[in-house]
Amino acid sequence: MSEIVANNPNLKSWVDVPANSDFPIQNLPLGVFKTDSLSPRAGSRIGDFVIDLKTLFVLGYFENLPFSSEDFDTDNLNSLMKKGKKATRNLRNRLSKLFSTEHDDLQKNTHHVDQILVPVASVVMLMPVQIGDYTDFYSSREHATNVGTMFRDPNNALLPNWLWIPVGYHGRASSVIISGEPIYRPKGQIKPNPEENPIYAPCRNLDFELETAFITYDGKPLGDSISTEEAEEYIFGMVLFNDWSARDIQTWEYVPLGPFLAKNFASSISPWIVTLDALQPYKVAGPVQDPKVLSYLEYNGEKSYDINLQVLIQPENGEENLICRSNFKYMYWNMAQQLAHHTVNGCNVRCGDLMGSGTISGPTPDSYGSMLELAWKGTKPLPMSDGTERKFIQDNDTVIMRGYSEKNGIRIGFGEVSTKVLPAK
Amino acid sequence: MSEIVANNPNLKSWVDVPANSDFPIQNLPLGVFKTDSLSPRAGSRIGDFVIDLKTLFVLGYFENLPFSSEDFDTDNLNSLMKKGKKATRNLRNRLSKLFSTEHDDLQKNTHHVDQILVPVASVVMLMPVQIGDYTDFYSSREHATNVGTMFRDPNNALLPNWLWIPVGYHGRASSVIISGEPIYRPKGQIKPNPEENPIYAPCRNLDFELETAFITYDGKPLGDSISTEEAEEYIFGMVLFNDWSARDIQTWEYVPLGPFLAKNFASSISPWIVTLDALQPYKVAGPVQDPKVLSYLEYNGEKSYDINLQVLIQPENGEENLICRSNFKYMYWNMAQQLAHHTVNGCNVRCGDLMGSGTISGPTPDSYGSMLELAWKGTKPLPMSDGTERKFIQDNDTVIMRGYSEKNGIRIGFGEVSTKVLPAK
Repeated sequence: MSEIVANNPNLKSWVDVPANSDFPIQNLPLGVFKTDSLSPRAGSRIGDFVIDLKTLFVLGYFENLPFSSEDFDTDNLNSLMKKGKKATRNLRNRLSKLFSTEHDDLQKNTHHVDQILVPVASVVMLMPVQIGDYTDFYSSREHATNVGTMFRDPNNALLPNWLWIPVGYHGRASSVIISGEPIYRPKGQIKPNPEENPIYAPCRNLDFELETAFITYDGKPLGDSISTEEAEEYIFGMVLFNDWSARDIQTWEYVPLGPFLAKNFASSISPWIVTLDALQPYKVAGPVQDPKVLSYLEYNGEKSYDINLQVLIQPENGEENLICRSNFKYMYWNMAQQLAHHTVNGCNVRCGDLMGSGTISGPTPDSYGSMLELAWKGTKPLPMSDGTERKFIQDNDTVIMRGYSEKNGIRIGFGEVSTKVLPAK
Repeated sequence: MSEIVANNPNLKSWVDVPANSDFPIQNLPLGVFKTDSLSPRAGSRIGDFVIDLKTLFVLGYFENLPFSSEDFDTDNLNSLMKKGKKATRNLRNRLSKLFSTEHDDLQKNTHHVDQILVPVASVVMLMPVQIGDYTDFYSSREHATNVGTMFRDPNNALLPNWLWIPVGYHGRASSVIISGEPIYRPKGQIKPNPEENPIYAPCRNLDFELETAFITYDGKPLGDSISTEEAEEYIFGMVLFNDWSARDIQTWEYVPLGPFLAKNFASSISPWIVTLDALQPYKVAGPVQDPKVLSYLEYNGEKSYDINLQVLIQPENGEENLICRSNFKYMYWNMAQQLAHHTVNGCNVRCGDLMGSGTISGPTPDSYGSMLELAWKGTKPLPMSDGTERKFIQDNDTVIMRGYSEKNGIRIGFGEVSTKVLPAK
């Protein structure tokens, strides 16, 4: 497959990119946007500008790439992704060339530049993909240990299968929403008093889960498996992912078939899909896996990624409060293992499937990826700058997650996923 | 909404319908088919003929109905279903009129008849819908009790939440397949010896689950709920559903987040969607629910359906062996309650979502809906007519499920879902 020339750290763009921007020329993520005057279409991002890919295509800048008009003139990236990894890699390489100071094909044509660079303040970002199936994993050892410690036995916090299986379960695709879309506090069955009957009421223990998610290309046919060696060829890119969770609904409903209404009222994603290609410079070794994993989960080389992650709570009319700093690299099971496990039984993945990491908790109490852990089941409330405190998420709070990789002065960021919680309907 | 005139038991068709056919003029299910010469398209069924709805539309027989060419000239029924319940009800009423002996508009035009009646032997049935999300419930008290008795405590077989919650979980939409498509025995992690480490191997305890599933119209927006009163207005129809299950994979993986690889390698559906309208004459009262359900699960009137269900095993080169007779009416939780529960937290359902009933076991040992229960964890193997016996499903076995409602000489049938199990790849 072609080289990822777009990752060259020496590249500079003729578009002004602010210091510490998530979107230097080495990122070039993909998403879908619209404006008051532009219909929904595929876009990329550089600095504080959205790149209108539909117009770039129409103006002929994607010559010799295997795309057609519908791949960009669309409200989702599925048909573009269906062209496969070689095609999307070459698209990013082409964008890199067009916006690099080393080439002036586009730069010199100011009439074109005015059309294709859209100020980020004027766009509305849309769901970037039509999600087929959404799967959520449970791959942070620290998170699984914290939950096991709180709800089961601190001395046997991990369940017997956890170190053998990248545990996962199916979630709801219909309720995956884009950053900026508010959610309503869910209602459901809760059992506040263990001695009394359950009641029907709004959730009292509303929580976020700090996750990332990866989005797949078309996989293999039903019955075939994807190996750890092949797995990353089937991964298009990653987003930040807030897997909203109603802890009190979850506690009462989840035995024996897993979380259902506790999760499926909403999950929020960041709008820009950062390609796995762009993240290659940030590969790191993952945790040592002991016991040795079964053959189909073995892998070679570095398959983890160094991605800084943050969670902030912004109360109504208040400031942002940074409450968690974690990192994707803490994950015990990597994405290649997750995808190999998911397909080992012949399960098929399709273009646009979304796979959540599971809550990413780090080793220290300020790196835990949920309120359940940060406030330790409500026993250690978190102070906010406005003088209030939080055991869980309150009505009208906005939860914001940010993430970025950084090395040698190059920062590949995800932007943010931000969601406001409205009172129960 | 308009009357369901198509259910009139006195109607006869000018098309010859064999005695005991699942598809009299009172059924008129919907599906998608193709032949060697016809592209995929919407169809209905009467007796041993498939009705070509695309051609009926082109010939002008659907005048004054709110459909367009794409609703019939398609490989799925989603756009047709998006027209809503009133539209699909009127479509079925129109078909009923066209094929009734009381009208000769179509009958007299033998040139048209020859085009629109396709012998069933010459068609290939396709997946009738593009499934958005697939949810599986666990709504048979007998099944939950049997499982609890085998794996937990016979004296406390039902878990504490079971009588309060129509327990459900999310499944995999990508691997739902149509009757006739074979599956491969799945591979995965199993733990044959509790004292030893898990191994990677083909499933040894492959099972079916006898279920039905309903398919929805577009529901309400995210954040809104569907009441039990409204629920049936959002249900298009039902199919037979075989929720394939790898019991040994399930046992090792399912705590704490539920079944994953044990289920998502395949689920098979019957090709004809029998409309909920056609099933109205077979409504019956459901089981008494004690304790009294919470307010959002209360319902009025009869919401259960009398649908006879059968499971047969056909060994390679052998005869069919009837191993189970059950009935949909045994379900503790009805579809209206399932849908009300699914949306009580604001979760949105979309056109083409599939909701499985859960294994439908009856009160007697010959009415249990899975091999796990029928052969009681392998302790009571089932004899086959070829002299072999079955604890679970063997390679090259074909599992067939059939179902029908019958009253006053009118039989509304589902046809069958039939799936052959091939050896592990």
